[in-house]
Amino acid sequence: MQIGVLGSGVTGQTIGSRLLELGHEVMMGSRDEANPPAVAWAKEEGQHALYGTFMNAAAFGEIIFNCTLGSSSLEALQQAGAANLKGKILIDTSNPLDRSTDMWTLTICNDDSLGEQIQRAFPETKVVKTLNTVNANVMVDPAKLLERTHVFVSGDDIEAKATVVRILRDWFGWREIIDLGGIETSRGVEMYVLLWHNLRNAISSQRFNIKIVTSG
Amino acid sequence: MQIGVLGSGVTGQTIGSRLLELGHEVMMGSRDEANPPAVAWAKEEGQHALYGTFMNAAAFGEIIFNCTLGSSSLEALQQAGAANLKGKILIDTSNPLDRSTDMWTLTICNDDSLGEQIQRAFPETKVVKTLNTVNANVMVDPAKLLERTHVFVSGDDIEAKATVVRILRDWFGWREIIDLGGIETSRGVEMYVLLWHNLRNAISSQRFNIKIVTSG
Repeated sequence: MQIGVLGSGVTGQTIGSRLLELGHEVMMGSRDEANPPAVAWAKEEGQHALYGTFMNAAAFGEIIFNCTLGSSSLEALQQAGAANLKGKILIDTSNPLDRSTDMWTLTICNDDSLGEQIQRAFPETKVVKTLNTVNANVMVDPAKLLERTHVFVSGDDIEAKATVVRILRDWFGWREIIDLGGIETSRGVEMYVLLWHNLRNAISSQRFNIKIVTSG
Repeated sequence: MQIGVLGSGVTGQTIGSRLLELGHEVMMGSRDEANPPAVAWAKEEGQHALYGTFMNAAAFGEIIFNCTLGSSSLEALQQAGAANLKGKILIDTSNPLDRSTDMWTLTICNDDSLGEQIQRAFPETKVVKTLNTVNANVMVDPAKLLERTHVFVSGDDIEAKATVVRILRDWFGWREIIDLGGIETSRGVEMYVLLWHNLRNAISSQRFNIKIVTSG
């Protein structure tokens, strides 16, 4: 499959590399066509790893991963272009974080979310929010954790969510996937990221996740 | 021990009843001296269950639980009176929720929290935020869940937090308690409550909690 990965940071590289391992062709999109981290990544990963602009990657991909920083996601997606995203599934892993101080804050929250803003800006794209509650290494290899933990999907398109659930399960190895509901449930998972940050500081590790435990 | 429980809703009644089982004397505080739910609760619970105003309960308690709705916590604590709270531990279980619509929102979040607002309003009181991430039944009986799950403490006073950790462990049975840091980490646990709400809807149960799973 041809997959577009928007963003050349740790998340984009980790997801892109995992997709290549699975045999897909991956184009990493950046603001500039020859973004040094993207070029270096593609060189290391071989012939099925491509790079280009956000627009190139969106046009290339049958499915698109948004791995840009939340603070620049909307701009990156505008550069990708609505026409190149139209009718496609956009797997949104981003968080609207302001990390300029020790106490992280969100640039959007409470009565709106980045997931919703993206869906509103691109109504003909099927936005599915997921994976934003874990570190990149956990995203693509949840089995490294000591127990099965949970990941969530939020989105308005039922079929798109079903496809993303299969991707999470078959490509990345997630076994416990909870459908939270419509894209508006992005608020909860994005706002959780402040607790994630507190936990990271408390346990001095980014490799963790939450498991939902019930009373049976 | 004499304990003041502010609030006569489900949380106040559940915590109050558990404290009575443990042999403590509990005064439930309300806006009005003879608040019907508090009167009914005290009648059912017997001689060690008392009721009165917020001020009466705060004056009575050596330790105070804030179990009022977050939307009225500051007002309730003002009625309790700074002098009656001075030097005491205030265990704050509240969340600043607006539940007037299906999509819950917070009345305070992101760059502030109810925990911090309470601590600022009562600088001579030792505020410890905890238990706000679970339903009342789970608060006092976490062993009912299928596995050990995590609860968090946030607060500026180290000794007060240590006391609260002992209370959580010895009185309520919590085994996995994470100290998130200062009272400003209330933001994360309060903002988590939107995900909690989405999870409650997704799994159709309020009796659940999260377990932090690491890579070992």
